[in-house]
Amino acid sequence: MTFKLPGYCPPDLTRERFSSAPAALTAEAPGNGTAPSGFHATSNHPEYVCMEPGKWILVRESRMDCVIVRRGDSLEVLEPRRLKQGDRVVLGRTENGEDGIFVHTEGFDTGRSSAPDKFSFRIRGTRETPFSKSYDALYDLLRHDREHGYIVWVLGPAVAFDQDSRRAMQGLIRNGFCHVLLAGNALATHDLEAAMFQTGLGQDIYTQEPVRHGHYHHLDVLNTVRQYGTIKETIREMKISDGIMYTCEKYRVPYILAGSIRDDGPLPEVVADVYKSQDAMRPHAKKATTVVAMATQLHSIAFGNMTPSYRVMENGLVRPVYFYIVDISEFSVDKLANRGSVQATAVVTNVQDFIVNLSRNLDSWQQEGQPS
Amino acid sequence: MTFKLPGYCPPDLTRERFSSAPAALTAEAPGNGTAPSGFHATSNHPEYVCMEPGKWILVRESRMDCVIVRRGDSLEVLEPRRLKQGDRVVLGRTENGEDGIFVHTEGFDTGRSSAPDKFSFRIRGTRETPFSKSYDALYDLLRHDREHGYIVWVLGPAVAFDQDSRRAMQGLIRNGFCHVLLAGNALATHDLEAAMFQTGLGQDIYTQEPVRHGHYHHLDVLNTVRQYGTIKETIREMKISDGIMYTCEKYRVPYILAGSIRDDGPLPEVVADVYKSQDAMRPHAKKATTVVAMATQLHSIAFGNMTPSYRVMENGLVRPVYFYIVDISEFSVDKLANRGSVQATAVVTNVQDFIVNLSRNLDSWQQEGQPS
Amino acid sequence: MTFKLPGYCPPDLTRERFSSAPAALTAEAPGNGTAPSGFHATSNHPEYVCMEPGKWILVRESRMDCVIVRRGDSLEVLEPRRLKQGDRVVLGRTENGEDGIFVHTEGFDTGRSSAPDKFSFRIRGTRETPFSKSYDALYDLLRHDREHGYIVWVLGPAVAFDQDSRRAMQGLIRNGFCHVLLAGNALATHDLEAAMFQTGLGQDIYTQEPVRHGHYHHLDVLNTVRQYGTIKETIREMKISDGIMYTCEKYRVPYILAGSIRDDGPLPEVVADVYKSQDAMRPHAKKATTVVAMATQLHSIAFGNMTPSYRVMENGLVRPVYFYIVDISEFSVDKLANRGSVQATAVVTNVQDFIVNLSRNLDSWQQEGQPS
Amino acid sequence: MTFKLPGYCPPDLTRERFSSAPAALTAEAPGNGTAPSGFHATSNHPEYVCMEPGKWILVRESRMDCVIVRRGDSLEVLEPRRLKQGDRVVLGRTENGEDGIFVHTEGFDTGRSSAPDKFSFRIRGTRETPFSKSYDALYDLLRHDREHGYIVWVLGPAVAFDQDSRRAMQGLIRNGFCHVLLAGNALATHDLEAAMFQTGLGQDIYTQEPVRHGHYHHLDVLNTVRQYGTIKETIREMKISDGIMYTCEKYRVPYILAGSIRDDGPLPEVVADVYKSQDAMRPHAKKATTVVAMATQLHSIAFGNMTPSYRVMENGLVRPVYFYIVDISEFSVDKLANRGSVQATAVVTNVQDFIVNLSRNLDSWQQEGQPS
Repeated sequence: MTFKLPGYCPPDLTRERFSSAPAALTAEAPGNGTAPSGFHATSNHPEYVCMEPGKWILVRESRMDCVIVRRGDSLEVLEPRRLKQGDRVVLGRTENGEDGIFVHTEGFDTGRSSAPDKFSFRIRGTRETPFSKSYDALYDLLRHDREHGYIVWVLGPAVAFDQDSRRAMQGLIRNGFCHVLLAGNALATHDLEAAMFQTGLGQDIYTQEPVRHGHYHHLDVLNTVRQYGTIKETIREMKISDGIMYTCEKYRVPYILAGSIRDDGPLPEVVADVYKSQDAMRPHAKKATTVVAMATQLHSIAFGNMTPSYRVMENGLVRPVYFYIVDISEFSVDKLANRGSVQATAVVTNVQDFIVNLSRNLDSWQQEGQPS
Repeated sequence: MTFKLPGYCPPDLTRERFSSAPAALTAEAPGNGTAPSGFHATSNHPEYVCMEPGKWILVRESRMDCVIVRRGDSLEVLEPRRLKQGDRVVLGRTENGEDGIFVHTEGFDTGRSSAPDKFSFRIRGTRETPFSKSYDALYDLLRHDREHGYIVWVLGPAVAFDQDSRRAMQGLIRNGFCHVLLAGNALATHDLEAAMFQTGLGQDIYTQEPVRHGHYHHLDVLNTVRQYGTIKETIREMKISDGIMYTCEKYRVPYILAGSIRDDGPLPEVVADVYKSQDAMRPHAKKATTVVAMATQLHSIAFGNMTPSYRVMENGLVRPVYFYIVDISEFSVDKLANRGSVQATAVVTNVQDFIVNLSRNLDSWQQEGQPS
Repeated sequence: MTFKLPGYCPPDLTRERFSSAPAALTAEAPGNGTAPSGFHATSNHPEYVCMEPGKWILVRESRMDCVIVRRGDSLEVLEPRRLKQGDRVVLGRTENGEDGIFVHTEGFDTGRSSAPDKFSFRIRGTRETPFSKSYDALYDLLRHDREHGYIVWVLGPAVAFDQDSRRAMQGLIRNGFCHVLLAGNALATHDLEAAMFQTGLGQDIYTQEPVRHGHYHHLDVLNTVRQYGTIKETIREMKISDGIMYTCEKYRVPYILAGSIRDDGPLPEVVADVYKSQDAMRPHAKKATTVVAMATQLHSIAFGNMTPSYRVMENGLVRPVYFYIVDISEFSVDKLANRGSVQATAVVTNVQDFIVNLSRNLDSWQQEGQPS
Repeated sequence: MTFKLPGYCPPDLTRERFSSAPAALTAEAPGNGTAPSGFHATSNHPEYVCMEPGKWILVRESRMDCVIVRRGDSLEVLEPRRLKQGDRVVLGRTENGEDGIFVHTEGFDTGRSSAPDKFSFRIRGTRETPFSKSYDALYDLLRHDREHGYIVWVLGPAVAFDQDSRRAMQGLIRNGFCHVLLAGNALATHDLEAAMFQTGLGQDIYTQEPVRHGHYHHLDVLNTVRQYGTIKETIREMKISDGIMYTCEKYRVPYILAGSIRDDGPLPEVVADVYKSQDAMRPHAKKATTVVAMATQLHSIAFGNMTPSYRVMENGLVRPVYFYIVDISEFSVDKLANRGSVQATAVVTNVQDFIVNLSRNLDSWQQEGQPS
């Protein structure tokens, strides 16, 4: 199958409802980090703002639950906390254009017809939903976006707890299927624990055996890295030669480790301030064309909130952003699906299997002992 | 890896506690289907019964929660409902030999040491348990038991709801990895629905699209098979050439479809009486050497209850029976694990991925269009 | 709050689309238990069938996935397996009246407006859905239907595993809030185990302590009842004075125990043939005005399948049938919700808490030691 | 039932293994935030350190996964990141006293016997575990610790999404059952949303109806509080008179809102730096005698990690710290239970029901319209 991006169908802005609409109102931010009353909040859909009667522009680099600041003829989507007093914030809570704001939910042809019957089974995605096509589509998508897009992985620590899933992730990074890695202290710590001790939280990542004094392993990892000062230096000094962090360092794939109150340690690279973490993640959300978020409700929702459903490419092309959310719990995947993105694809499974499937089908399976 | 069955280490019956023990008492069943007071109930472990002082025999073809009937010098493990008035039922509720009954829980070397620390993480199996070795062990086991054992599959309908998982199961049957299939009306119905309509409960098993009038599909399947009289005849008449039921018929793999109150239809082969279903399933539990139970709490627990942890082979060899329980819910796999079998291996995942993994690693992946 | 049944708004059958519609076609059942090609399958909604041009009648005592048999001027909704050769089966798969069949999905005013925004959170019911109103509505409903309706309880065994929840259920039965009880072998067995041993599967139902030889308890219960011949006689002989089964017997609340392949024993009252179980349950589905199904996927779905969303009362009044499905798993409650009944209310919680809440709020809390 | 704290049974330090043991070794922290090689990591159990031969002292204010710093004759338990270069860190990884460290896991008589059988059902706590006694024990405990202890609540936002559960929590605070509240931005935001709009994430907290423009509600709440500068000032200015935050302010119950990368806003009180959040929470962990953690995996695990299983009271009494973890998912409660605290009690249910139960049984149910 050759992958083909679905076309984008912009609204017909020559229609009377648009041509007669007023420019969207703005008001000044009353203080730093606060918005004026009646501010418009963005969705993750493409939105058009009327700058002056007859002139509409598509908002770029958008995300959910932010405000739009007008700077002359351009628009910027900002978290309200980043507003400066006096910023001109777009006002309006209608979405049909009458106040100069149009939310365009039907821009991409999803190829899905709606069910024509009064009754049908299994509307909601569950563990029993067939996922074969979701996999096949993702294989194509990753192959395409490896060259032509920007692939973001959001990982919970479970990926590092199993030998095969850790190796699979490593293979995907090595083969160029990951442009940035977003995770927390735990993923990095337990990946390094696996590299140094072959365990995850003290349990052998292959045999499942708890190891004597294994609960010290992650503490020793944290202490070691804190002594060496960086993950990179630790990998060099400890001669680590496998794993997710190792492969990121080797292939210069950037990673962001966002802190949480659950952290031991933390590793030196972990960002302590959660809003600085958001600010570090957001640029990747702006560039993202495909996101795969696995086994972490915290990070998945955080990044899901800041990822729009579309991206305007450098050449002006508008394309969908694909968001795969992979979790074993329907509740977790619904958390995102309930936010209503048509581009969000849920896969309800154990991430170990998911990532091994991906790796094998993308010919990225890394053999043991094979030079990486 | 070459698979090697773990050895069986019988208890040393020459020890004084055994040589001095009395014969196990028996009493007559007071009526059909009822046991005498104080009856001994079997576990799924090897049990030894003292027939006369100094003479112990190992119970064969056992199962959990049954009674032992002494018939001369031999013993039979029976469901209490199958007792006949006057059957001599073994009595006794101790397990250490003092009353002539010894439950031998340590017969197989599992190779697991116990954790030596006062503290360790993650004792219980969950979605975060590493499953790589469980998979590898199962691949070896299935290859071994294909020739030298008896492999039982217990399937919920979800396996038929997805194109790849259905194809994977088909490949495993075709390649000899399934000696008997236990399921219910739904698995067979939806597998035939997939063959006739490419849907499961009206949803396309590849594209996830609900199909117009799709909720009629399984009803039409049921009606069609009821008209033809058998699944086999339907396959012939309808020229069905793929799927789980088709492959069972083609390769003469027997199947038992046990009825439940949830059934529409049912298909003609479905056993309406649940105790007759149990009686039909039990002979396969006696022969089983490996069981894989997926995505059905009802059938998994039913068959788990009747499967012992060991089998005495024709040549007298005592070997373990391996029981894999695969489900996406920790609660479901725990239901069996709580019954305490050391041989039970839980894999917490979506069965679609599990079965596709199996199929690919056992070189049983069935290509579309490939003659089956 | 005084409870008021929502009114029923029948379709306007004088409209041209109805008055000009043809009588629904029928065809003879080609054999016992099989339907003619093109048969119409019922939904759980009110359906109208055109008997002759201009004459429509509302189908009574309907259920999902059945056929409609015309007998002169009346209609009967039958499971296809119960068809007799020659029965005149209504044909047609459209639902808008054009073929003489109209499925009326909007008969009851649910008081729910639809969300007017392009975007809103949390469409699907989950553990985070607010349930206060669902509880309040159920209290009112149960008080109303105690006198004016027919309340069906469908119970899994978990209700008997906890002292308070078992007592709560007992109080509800004693106070008239249960007109029939549908369950399986396990519920009755473990309720009697609690009465005789204060345990559930060998675990104390208050202290959680596993009891020595506790795994014999349910086996001894089964054996005892099988010896006495009936639950009723056992209660008398063993002087049992508390519990769900005791209270049903004392207040002559009928119960149906449907067999499953998971059963030990079974108790003598358990129906072995699953289709006979369905036939025994269906009359209660026809009478039901409120159903509360808890902690059993098997029985809940079985009864959900046979319960319509409306009942035509003796006086001709058409009223909704309320179906509460209570389970701790979103997946389980979705199984029913996906079948699309507007009257189905999901409560995602532990049934222990649910039933204790009900009992306290309906003033049915049964004190320990209090004469029941 | 009158509540009685279980006695503490210290180890017999006069025994030879203790009297002959060496003083625990120490080594200097090689740098700020790093521990020397071979550092001892604390558990959540009472631990005794040998200061000089024959002199053992009990570590106070401990927690899991920290180091012990010796300062003269006293010991301090510190997160490794808080070490200063040159701090004397206790070394040793044995727990039986041989290296001067003894971990005392059996100090409190839990009153639990161990199961004496080779086989028993349902070892692990699940949704089917009976919780009546857990509730009763908690009622007694809360009544006792209201006067004689320090009760910490750790809340996820779900508590604020339902009218009754929010009111129940409010009643518990008002009646003195909460000495400190630990939560995140979402709990406070949605509680204030409920106060201002009667919604949670735009859904009516009683009727479940999505409200028009409801997805703006939490954004407007955040903006409003950011304009007023504090929650307290907002409550005053907006004349808010109900809810969790209102009641905390009114009764001067302190709260800590720890930031996470998922936050919108945030509210001004939210701590942005996660390690500062930990440092703010830890003093409450040192004082805690009872903790109830509900519906938040992130905050529950964070606080669980820092809560010891015992507290040394001002008068020298050693008492257990009770930790209730309440969640609808077995996986979530297991996350803590797997950390092995005997004092951890899991209740698997919906927190809405849990908190309403508590409130009613502690006579803290707050009537609508009742002056609070």
